[in-house]
Amino acid sequence: MGGFFGAVSRRDCVLDVFFGVDYHSHLGTRRGGMAALSESTGFIREIHNIENSPFRTKFEHVLDEMHGKACIGCISDTDPQPILIRSDLGVYAICVTGIINNADELAAMYLKNSGGHFEAMGGGRVNSTELAAALIDSKDNFADGILYAQEMIEGTASVLILSDDGSIYAARDKMGRLPVVTGRGEDGICVSLESFACTKLGYPELRELGPGEVVRITADDIEVLSPPKEEMRFCAFMWTYYGYPTSSYEGVNVEVMRNRNGEILAQNDRASGSADDVDYVSGVPDSGTPHAIGYSNESKTAFARPFIKYTPTWPRSFMPANQSERNRVAKMKMIPVHELIEGKKLLFVDDSIVRGTQLRETVEFLYENGAEEVHMRSASPPIMYGCKFLNFSRSNSEMELITRRTIIDLEGEEGLKHIDEYSDGNTERGRAMRKAICEKFNFTSLEYQSLDGLIRSIGIDRCKVCTYCWNGKE
Amino acid sequence: MGGFFGAVSRRDCVLDVFFGVDYHSHLGTRRGGMAALSESTGFIREIHNIENSPFRTKFEHVLDEMHGKACIGCISDTDPQPILIRSDLGVYAICVTGIINNADELAAMYLKNSGGHFEAMGGGRVNSTELAAALIDSKDNFADGILYAQEMIEGTASVLILSDDGSIYAARDKMGRLPVVTGRGEDGICVSLESFACTKLGYPELRELGPGEVVRITADDIEVLSPPKEEMRFCAFMWTYYGYPTSSYEGVNVEVMRNRNGEILAQNDRASGSADDVDYVSGVPDSGTPHAIGYSNESKTAFARPFIKYTPTWPRSFMPANQSERNRVAKMKMIPVHELIEGKKLLFVDDSIVRGTQLRETVEFLYENGAEEVHMRSASPPIMYGCKFLNFSRSNSEMELITRRTIIDLEGEEGLKHIDEYSDGNTERGRAMRKAICEKFNFTSLEYQSLDGLIRSIGIDRCKVCTYCWNGKE
Amino acid sequence: MGGFFGAVSRRDCVLDVFFGVDYHSHLGTRRGGMAALSESTGFIREIHNIENSPFRTKFEHVLDEMHGKACIGCISDTDPQPILIRSDLGVYAICVTGIINNADELAAMYLKNSGGHFEAMGGGRVNSTELAAALIDSKDNFADGILYAQEMIEGTASVLILSDDGSIYAARDKMGRLPVVTGRGEDGICVSLESFACTKLGYPELRELGPGEVVRITADDIEVLSPPKEEMRFCAFMWTYYGYPTSSYEGVNVEVMRNRNGEILAQNDRASGSADDVDYVSGVPDSGTPHAIGYSNESKTAFARPFIKYTPTWPRSFMPANQSERNRVAKMKMIPVHELIEGKKLLFVDDSIVRGTQLRETVEFLYENGAEEVHMRSASPPIMYGCKFLNFSRSNSEMELITRRTIIDLEGEEGLKHIDEYSDGNTERGRAMRKAICEKFNFTSLEYQSLDGLIRSIGIDRCKVCTYCWNGKE
Amino acid sequence: MGGFFGAVSRRDCVLDVFFGVDYHSHLGTRRGGMAALSESTGFIREIHNIENSPFRTKFEHVLDEMHGKACIGCISDTDPQPILIRSDLGVYAICVTGIINNADELAAMYLKNSGGHFEAMGGGRVNSTELAAALIDSKDNFADGILYAQEMIEGTASVLILSDDGSIYAARDKMGRLPVVTGRGEDGICVSLESFACTKLGYPELRELGPGEVVRITADDIEVLSPPKEEMRFCAFMWTYYGYPTSSYEGVNVEVMRNRNGEILAQNDRASGSADDVDYVSGVPDSGTPHAIGYSNESKTAFARPFIKYTPTWPRSFMPANQSERNRVAKMKMIPVHELIEGKKLLFVDDSIVRGTQLRETVEFLYENGAEEVHMRSASPPIMYGCKFLNFSRSNSEMELITRRTIIDLEGEEGLKHIDEYSDGNTERGRAMRKAICEKFNFTSLEYQSLDGLIRSIGIDRCKVCTYCWNGKE
Repeated sequence: MGGFFGAVSRRDCVLDVFFGVDYHSHLGTRRGGMAALSESTGFIREIHNIENSPFRTKFEHVLDEMHGKACIGCISDTDPQPILIRSDLGVYAICVTGIINNADELAAMYLKNSGGHFEAMGGGRVNSTELAAALIDSKDNFADGILYAQEMIEGTASVLILSDDGSIYAARDKMGRLPVVTGRGEDGICVSLESFACTKLGYPELRELGPGEVVRITADDIEVLSPPKEEMRFCAFMWTYYGYPTSSYEGVNVEVMRNRNGEILAQNDRASGSADDVDYVSGVPDSGTPHAIGYSNESKTAFARPFIKYTPTWPRSFMPANQSERNRVAKMKMIPVHELIEGKKLLFVDDSIVRGTQLRETVEFLYENGAEEVHMRSASPPIMYGCKFLNFSRSNSEMELITRRTIIDLEGEEGLKHIDEYSDGNTERGRAMRKAICEKFNFTSLEYQSLDGLIRSIGIDRCKVCTYCWNGKE
Repeated sequence: MGGFFGAVSRRDCVLDVFFGVDYHSHLGTRRGGMAALSESTGFIREIHNIENSPFRTKFEHVLDEMHGKACIGCISDTDPQPILIRSDLGVYAICVTGIINNADELAAMYLKNSGGHFEAMGGGRVNSTELAAALIDSKDNFADGILYAQEMIEGTASVLILSDDGSIYAARDKMGRLPVVTGRGEDGICVSLESFACTKLGYPELRELGPGEVVRITADDIEVLSPPKEEMRFCAFMWTYYGYPTSSYEGVNVEVMRNRNGEILAQNDRASGSADDVDYVSGVPDSGTPHAIGYSNESKTAFARPFIKYTPTWPRSFMPANQSERNRVAKMKMIPVHELIEGKKLLFVDDSIVRGTQLRETVEFLYENGAEEVHMRSASPPIMYGCKFLNFSRSNSEMELITRRTIIDLEGEEGLKHIDEYSDGNTERGRAMRKAICEKFNFTSLEYQSLDGLIRSIGIDRCKVCTYCWNGKE
Repeated sequence: MGGFFGAVSRRDCVLDVFFGVDYHSHLGTRRGGMAALSESTGFIREIHNIENSPFRTKFEHVLDEMHGKACIGCISDTDPQPILIRSDLGVYAICVTGIINNADELAAMYLKNSGGHFEAMGGGRVNSTELAAALIDSKDNFADGILYAQEMIEGTASVLILSDDGSIYAARDKMGRLPVVTGRGEDGICVSLESFACTKLGYPELRELGPGEVVRITADDIEVLSPPKEEMRFCAFMWTYYGYPTSSYEGVNVEVMRNRNGEILAQNDRASGSADDVDYVSGVPDSGTPHAIGYSNESKTAFARPFIKYTPTWPRSFMPANQSERNRVAKMKMIPVHELIEGKKLLFVDDSIVRGTQLRETVEFLYENGAEEVHMRSASPPIMYGCKFLNFSRSNSEMELITRRTIIDLEGEEGLKHIDEYSDGNTERGRAMRKAICEKFNFTSLEYQSLDGLIRSIGIDRCKVCTYCWNGKE
Repeated sequence: MGGFFGAVSRRDCVLDVFFGVDYHSHLGTRRGGMAALSESTGFIREIHNIENSPFRTKFEHVLDEMHGKACIGCISDTDPQPILIRSDLGVYAICVTGIINNADELAAMYLKNSGGHFEAMGGGRVNSTELAAALIDSKDNFADGILYAQEMIEGTASVLILSDDGSIYAARDKMGRLPVVTGRGEDGICVSLESFACTKLGYPELRELGPGEVVRITADDIEVLSPPKEEMRFCAFMWTYYGYPTSSYEGVNVEVMRNRNGEILAQNDRASGSADDVDYVSGVPDSGTPHAIGYSNESKTAFARPFIKYTPTWPRSFMPANQSERNRVAKMKMIPVHELIEGKKLLFVDDSIVRGTQLRETVEFLYENGAEEVHMRSASPPIMYGCKFLNFSRSNSEMELITRRTIIDLEGEEGLKHIDEYSDGNTERGRAMRKAICEKFNFTSLEYQSLDGLIRSIGIDRCKVCTYCWNGKE
């Protein structure tokens, strides 16, 4: 998915941006980039592959060369960014976070209607950030250009532009699916996807941009160029899975939301009397952990870590060429504490259940190591639809979803007509699906958070949260 | 400190050793190394600096070039290892974990008495592993050589040797301060410092070497060349701080010991009625966390993470040249969750209190963020002596210890004569010191685990545990 | 300056292009680039800095990754090339050799008139190859686009385009200042700046493009899209200095031209009776050598190498930061053979005399080593004007030219009105200038090749040769 | 083969050694190394592979890190050098140039007799420089140790040692097969294999060491520790092929010797009336060139370069995996000037004829390009024996020599009994062999320099020159 961070200051702020971008490393694994505007040398830009080496390692040396009082950067899971553009709007650096589903159509339309061109990438593909820039350039100023680009783009596009007058233009995507927040400090102002990056870097006075809001940032001020739109569809997964626990979105802290979510799961279990004698409550690391802490605290059941990830080394999977070796590597990170598994009744909380592949391996392993019972709790309702707004349901296609596969098993293609019913755990179909999944994975019990429970954990207006992957509502 | 892993197998086992060494990455930050014996090309060896890039990144390519049915490797915080030696004992690769306090004397003695030489490193220093090899070579076989080397070395030396007949010689240091464990699998046998590396890599049948035990390992068998010695002084910090939670030493799992340690701390607090109304119990990450989980479970007080480390990027500190930037970087990893701090009464468990520098910053930060109370619990007794066996009290000198500095403050140099009293929390002096530290750091309350409590958490015979850093007993 | 090479073949021709580009390494020191069109993966492109490592070293690995039956590449002293473009003309790779003097105006004009943009480079500059591409894109096909771009560009632009149908478009600059030649072999057709690259790589059937000629090349055929123009201004320095001795331009081989040029110098000296008792004739390496061979053969005076360049290591100067060290490095390449200098009467031939800095050092050194006489012969007339077509008079400004500086010394700014006279060695002013330079450098004698002599050495129609730097005629 | 350079100075001399070692790049293609002794940090050492990147590129960065008033370095075609040793003789850096034919026996003997060990290299091999160091260490001081090592070593060993008192010990091999020269400058003293490196780097006062001479060098003085030995066997190939033209050995400059050698060849041809109407005299680059210049000057026949090497890129062959591509690469460097070949009668001088493989390709190519006649002259007598002193006859075995293969063709194994006769061009067998080779290669004529002629070209006492490869005399 990716994220960005930028700053304008009365002093050199490249180091701030170095750390600010680094704080988005959990959001992407492919590329990092930074661009600064120096008074002496103009724009300077660097992009590095971060697939086998973390952002810091690749960008440390940049601090020797890059200087400036205005700087932006990003972690990108798609194309190399930021890119430098020279157009009627001047010279500027730009990064875009999100997804452009109609890139091919937009590129073709652009080439047909304008006299312009793209610098192609390997294979001839157009860099999606250059595509967004081309759309922005077709208007007379950045604000109009960004609004036009967001209008044309099917998908989601938050934009960060470092202009040649030293100001930064920032725009949150039009539906507010992702956060964009500004922070004001003593020497200047920053803009970030993750809020904690602002406070942590000395820009503590926070202000969240509204959906589609466009601002221009200088060291002194934030000027609103286009006001926020009414409608919002904030991605609920930012709280349950993607966001860093220390961030807050729409005023709601991620860790606190997850704790609360676990509490609700525990209350539900208490109400229904299920899993009332487990030995330990545990989270599937890392995102399941705070949900489990909430469950443990609420249920007064001991929290434990029967599984620990080996984190000292770089968490991104190194992938050997040989398939049997690849299988070994996949199982390499999660390490059991046998004493906390053998003969124990365990309740695990995971953030969600998508394809179930990794979960199956985990559960099998627990039983192999002597677990007596394995109760599973999903911190989200069953996922029924693949995300088309942010591309992050982590399944390549809807048919890889364990829910849909189970429905097909239960009653064939016909079942897909009753998705609504299946996603409601209180209907017969809902119960049947849950039971089938529970048996398929050999869980002792399985419960999902309800959509209501989830919304309650978040605590903001239901209509402001995107629930598409659960109920298909846009 | 460092650690090592080796394997002999009926199949190529270089990938096992790659992962096995990687699983010791938490024990060192400077260098990694691997050596294999290939039937076709003989010994092949690689060493890389891992200060700014993790072991995996630096050694991935090794898998293309290195092959063999016998392989060893290590993480080293000291000199480059493993080294290849050719001597009367043949050609062999060797790594040594521990510390040689009398290296200069041994090198001088060797050069005086033998006809030999060392390949010097930059500055003219002798690689401590080559020094150990030189001592080993002075005897007729590896077992006698290792025993001789361990006898001569003041400090600690666990040894791993890959010999040119394809077998591995492994020796645990003579006092058993560090663990060495073998694992037997379907295709062969491995040897490791951390036990979980064996089970995780398919060598599940474990057997811990005793102190000073020397064995010869082939794919089929483990031959004892020198039996274990009686006496043992296992380093207690392996459980409380250094060891990975998933490892077990002397049959005692690290995570479980830490949980139990936290439980005892909670029982003590309950008995004394202190800190009975805190909102959250938390651990100073990473090693404090399992102690805190135990405390929370026992005290039925909610566990929370008011502080979270930013782990996606490489945890080793990147260090800018500029001092003010260095200070910023030091504070960059720990990120607060304001909602879990402001107005809260917090109880934090840390593994130990050494110099107190980092702790002071943490506590100040909690108060700045609105914490109402900050209770501190140390999972170990007050550290009074710098380690001379493994070099890991994490202070450069005894006078940097917060305990000794506080004693000096209280009654000058005279106080150092009463160290014994000071380390007993039930004496007047012990209470005075704790009170002084508590006030110095502005803790709401401070309690240390007692030595008895600690020994109880570990659960093995007291005389088998090294308690030097607490009571100066060797 | 730079150069390019491309090939279309019925077999993979990436290796041909690798060597073909490498054969242009003498024409540039900054960057190399290659782009291929693979049937399976589409366009693939690589650019590397070659300032401290030769083209081969930097591109060897490319041969593992890059495959295709159509490929182009270049050595560039300016911007990174080739670049990939996607426009109305499809996806294509492009490189341009030459210079665009009105780049800023063209970029501004383009941005004003089109709806397009550029991907800017560091500092915000537009890549001159992308600029050329933008101009080309403004027409409906490559041929029209290239002709339009060449028309708009002030300067010189030879163009190589690899289109997405697998054909190559090649265009020689409109005035034919630089050569472009095609070669036909058994499996396909190549295009090159240096002719020897074609023959050497198995494309022996040569055909030189005329000025401004545009062709489309497939593996089978060369289609003329725009015929050659009448007028030509071939850069004479390609023969005397820049070109590789094994190349031929307009049918005239470089080595042979240089030999002939030296012969004429010798004939002139014989006619005037000057330097008739020198011990050795020598060339200032590398370009002076073949001129000197011709002189030696004609004059029957022994040829010798009193100076030899140290060529085993990379010829590009490594530059230390410290100025005094830089001065040393500058003198490091030329190594004397004392026996061939001391007490000897030496005649040296250099390709031309530009600023005179290096020559002064050489001559001083010869006298220091005991040379009795040092006669200097320049294989070209005195340079009076800085090149504005190819940017290669090797002086940053006209006022750095030794001729102009000498004229100012002789009669002040006034003298610059008589440049014509000064450049004719038979006028009084011409003689005065030569005498002044001769004394300034302490030459025993100094002679320049005359413009007539030079044209005779080349042997093609005078009006087809650019003589601007000597007589200011465009 | 390799070479070395060292310096001791009253100022930092690392840059001198950087250039000094670089000036030996023509002597080796595998590894470069440098070691300096800094007052602040002690010994610092770096070794790099130079197979695909020249010495300068790999060592430029060393200048930032390495400092000191005493420094040594080398180009090595064998093992990594210099190595650092710590022994009874202190800490020192050492490089050795030459060959140790009995390395295995010496290593085994050392391990048997001493209490020492070697740090083995990949495969378990002992670094030959560490082996030499071990031999040196067995005596009480460097001088005795070096003499002992040279005595024990079968082969050739010139030694350079940088000791921890900041002085350099230098020793020429015992038979003086290779040169070692010291140079004295204003600030200090250097030592080098190639003499021109001294003069060029500001150490102009030269003094050649005698065979087996051992000296100790400080910034002020050269102390003779062991005087030169009487006997000398200087390798004649240093003049004809290996040495750099600007060097002098035993007072005889390489370029001048080669010129003279060519003159004698011309005189012989004139005397015998052969090749009296050739168009051009040319050298097979690079070593053949100065021989050919001498021939041309003496015969008054025009010198020309019908063949030119492409030198701008790194001269070491890049080797593709594919055999047919390898064959192409081998022919890639030599580029013809067709105008100087077609219809011409050419006389080529090569330094020697060893296996004949490359020569055959060259000659075939000349005929293919239309040469009318190709006369070949070898600047050395026919090579009959493989070198066992310096390992550089450039054939892997004696049976690859074109001479021996021709003899076998002529009369079978029997012929090898008459090697003496064959090597004398005036005997019947000598004439038969020359005729056979001439026909085999399709030369128009073939002549070898005689041993007498060669000795005359060198101009020193015949018994001081090693002529083993021609007549088998040691």
